[in-house]
Amino acid sequence: MKNNVLNIVLFQPEIPHNTGAVGRTCVGLGAKLWIVRPMGFQITDRNLKRAGLDYWQYLDWEIVENWAALREKLPQWDRYFYFTKKAKYSYLDVAFQAGDVLVYGSETQGFPDLFHEEYAEQCLRIPIRPQIRSLNLSVSVGVSAFEAMRQIGHSADMQ
Amino acid sequence: MKNNVLNIVLFQPEIPHNTGAVGRTCVGLGAKLWIVRPMGFQITDRNLKRAGLDYWQYLDWEIVENWAALREKLPQWDRYFYFTKKAKYSYLDVAFQAGDVLVYGSETQGFPDLFHEEYAEQCLRIPIRPQIRSLNLSVSVGVSAFEAMRQIGHSADMQ
Repeated sequence: MKNNVLNIVLFQPEIPHNTGAVGRTCVGLGAKLWIVRPMGFQITDRNLKRAGLDYWQYLDWEIVENWAALREKLPQWDRYFYFTKKAKYSYLDVAFQAGDVLVYGSETQGFPDLFHEEYAEQCLRIPIRPQIRSLNLSVSVGVSAFEAMRQIGHSADMQ
Repeated sequence: MKNNVLNIVLFQPEIPHNTGAVGRTCVGLGAKLWIVRPMGFQITDRNLKRAGLDYWQYLDWEIVENWAALREKLPQWDRYFYFTKKAKYSYLDVAFQAGDVLVYGSETQGFPDLFHEEYAEQCLRIPIRPQIRSLNLSVSVGVSAFEAMRQIGHSADMQ
């Protein structure tokens, strides 16, 4: 798994449109998409077709049953970064590396409180004004994953 | 107009959901949103409410009738950047400045051919693999606008 340029993890995503846009970004970057169950919708061939996600066939993706299963499959735990507004560091404070694991909480629930306690040093925020609670999920993934790619010095169109 | 930290221009946008997500990003950044008509939908109080865009009240935005009207209101033409796959420069090749004008074409039509001829030196692409035609519009705006903010050294949550 270390040979993925980036690993993008959606933790219990709820809105299919967002997961679709994130999948599109992952194909564009050559990143692998991981989805941690439970999720608020089903990914079926019919749903993908209806949503016009014709790039999904190019996506390297995997659904895992729960958080423990993800951590078993991606054991580089010190390279996990959790995107949340409850973070003392900005995403611009860290140095990303190839193979890093970028984790995003569900649209309405974010992460369980336990995550903020246990992984506080690896939580990152994207600085925004307080008038919005958060960016759209697919926008958060785009902003942070392209910043990671910039730092890694990896241009997706050269793959 | 020069005192906006960034100006985000949607040229003839078609999909309301995308304009909504871009508006959310603009509020988060403190950027001004410009929309160039014709657009594929109407922005009404009722539509905004139905779409749950409760942050729209904090958005600094303006609709202009056409391209000429935009150029009259934002006369810093040498600081316009056009995001399109048909560009020789990457968005990482330029040095953004406060007050820059970032322009995005419509979801299905992009820009008129004339733009690519006339503004070739100011066209920028976001490097992606060829398996997707483009990123989602709101993702493109997020990636490029946050890169501009990073370069400008302006952290939105300090405003």
